[in-house]
Parts: sequence; structure tokens; C-alpha cells
Amino acid sequence: MAAKKAAKRSAKPAKKKSAPKRKSAASMAPRPVKTGKGATPLEIARDFAALIRAGKSDEVEKKWFAPGIESVEGLGASMAWKGKKAVLAKYRGWEADHEIHSMSLEGPWVGATGFALRFGVDVTQLSTGQRTQMHEIAVYTVHNGKVVREEFHFALPG
Amino acid sequence: MAAKKAAKRSAKPAKKKSAPKRKSAASMAPRPVKTGKGATPLEIARDFAALIRAGKSDEVEKKWFAPGIESVEGLGASMAWKGKKAVLAKYRGWEADHEIHSMSLEGPWVGATGFALRFGVDVTQLSTGQRTQMHEIAVYTVHNGKVVREEFHFALPG
Repeated sequence: MAAKKAAKRSAKPAKKKSAPKRKSAASMAPRPVKTGKGATPLEIARDFAALIRAGKSDEVEKKWFAPGIESVEGLGASMAWKGKKAVLAKYRGWEADHEIHSMSLEGPWVGATGFALRFGVDVTQLSTGQRTQMHEIAVYTVHNGKVVREEFHFALPG
Repeated sequence: MAAKKAAKRSAKPAKKKSAPKRKSAASMAPRPVKTGKGATPLEIARDFAALIRAGKSDEVEKKWFAPGIESVEGLGASMAWKGKKAVLAKYRGWEADHEIHSMSLEGPWVGATGFALRFGVDVTQLSTGQRTQMHEIAVYTVHNGKVVREEFHFALPG
């Protein structure tokens, strides 16, 4: 296409001018996506998933959570916790009020900036006695070899 | 830590001052996550998935893609296309070189800033004749009632 247009232009009386820059062609080109130094999303995803499958989520927190990690709860909650201290406090609060009967994990799927895991959790909330089956896609963002953000996406009810 | 430092300071000759504020408690609290005006992630997710299930992905592009949409290909590609024109050109290029035999779609899962879909695609690349089964989690970010970003996360081979 670019060659065709250039050919049309050159049929007109020539002006001494450099060819007009094809900015559009340049802006159509993709750019590489980087996540900084340290472990890649693929490396972290593999180890992260293996640790959770081995029941070592405390190890995940120690090893992979960045100090400034942000944790975002999805549909119906839509809140963000900022900083490892706040995020771990949220986890410990949730754990204190829930009994997990079983958990399934699928993944990882690996992107350019992070990775995704699929969780299924059969859980009873102790304070209410309510048992629910949660289905989530967790998406983790990687920077400089650590997870700097996680967002939980919830399956629609029904 | 802030409290400790304040205690040290208060050991010095007392000045009439109010008690130091417990900033740490405030910083532990979550903040609400918003996506601006217009359709919510839930509304877009439902319609987006319904349109794809109906084979109307062209309608998805028209209706939900923001002019400045960024499209990020995951593991092994790790590139970002910026702007609707570049993103649609990428799609049209891919479609011209691929024959889709079948497609499955699961989801949506809905987060605070967007939503996720799971794709399975059985496809042959026409230029190479190679047939592959792709398994992806696509994550869409919503702002002001449009999709401003998509990232494709790929299942690991094997």
C-alpha cells in the first residue's frame, strides 16, 4: 500500500523535497514489552504455581511479592490493597474467617507483562456458615523479578 | 515503625502537641477502584463475550475498542501494538494467514478494572500448513466504557 501511494505521488511534477515521512507505518509497528531485571514472567509463573500446588503459599509471599504489591479484588468488591503489609493483613483476615475444603489450580498462562492462574475454591465462611464455590482468574503483573500487582477476576453467579 | 520513632521523639523535652497520627492504619485500608464513566467492566464483559459467541467479533471491535487500545501478545512474542488502526491491522494480517477450525470460549471473569476470557482455538497457519491448538487467557482493561488494553496469556507448551 505504501509503495502504491508513493508511486502516485512521484507521478506529479517533482518538487525537490525529501519524501514525506510515513509516520503511520512507524506507529503501526509493535514495540517490545519488557518487565525489567530479574526473573521473567515465565520463570515466576512456573515457580509460583508449583509452590501453590505444593501448599506453600507462604513461600510465594516471601519469594515473589514486591514490597509495594497492589492486590485488587474484582466484581462486587472493586477495592485495592496497597503494600505487602496491607495485602498480607487482608489474606490473614480472610484465612481466619474461612475454612477451605478443597482448591483446584490451573495454569499458568504467560503473557508479556505477567501471568494468569485459574483457581477453584470450595470454602465455608466461618462467621456466617455459608459454603460457596469460588471460581477466579488471578492475573499477576511482574516488574524487576517480583509480582507488583494481582487482580482477581470472579466468575459470574449462576 | 512510625510509632517507635514518635516515641523516641517524645522522650525529648515535651512540646504541647497532639498525639502522632497512626498513618499506618490508614495506609492498610483498601481504596475503591473505578474505571471512569460509561459501561462497567461487567456490562462490557457480558456483551463482549455474547458477541464473540455469536461470531460477531467485528461488532466487538466497533463497539468496545477504544481508539487508543493497546494489544499485547504474550510469552514468546512479548510485543505491544498501540492504537485501534495498528491493532486491527494485526488482526487482519493474522486472519489472512490462518484458517480457524473451531473455537471455544469460557467466561467472562470480571475484575475491578476489566475482565478475562479463556479461548481455545484449533487453527492452521496457511503459509506453513502447521495446525496448532492454542489455549489463551485474554485480559481486557476497561476505562471510560471502552477496552483500552488487551493482553493475551498463553498456555505453556507440553
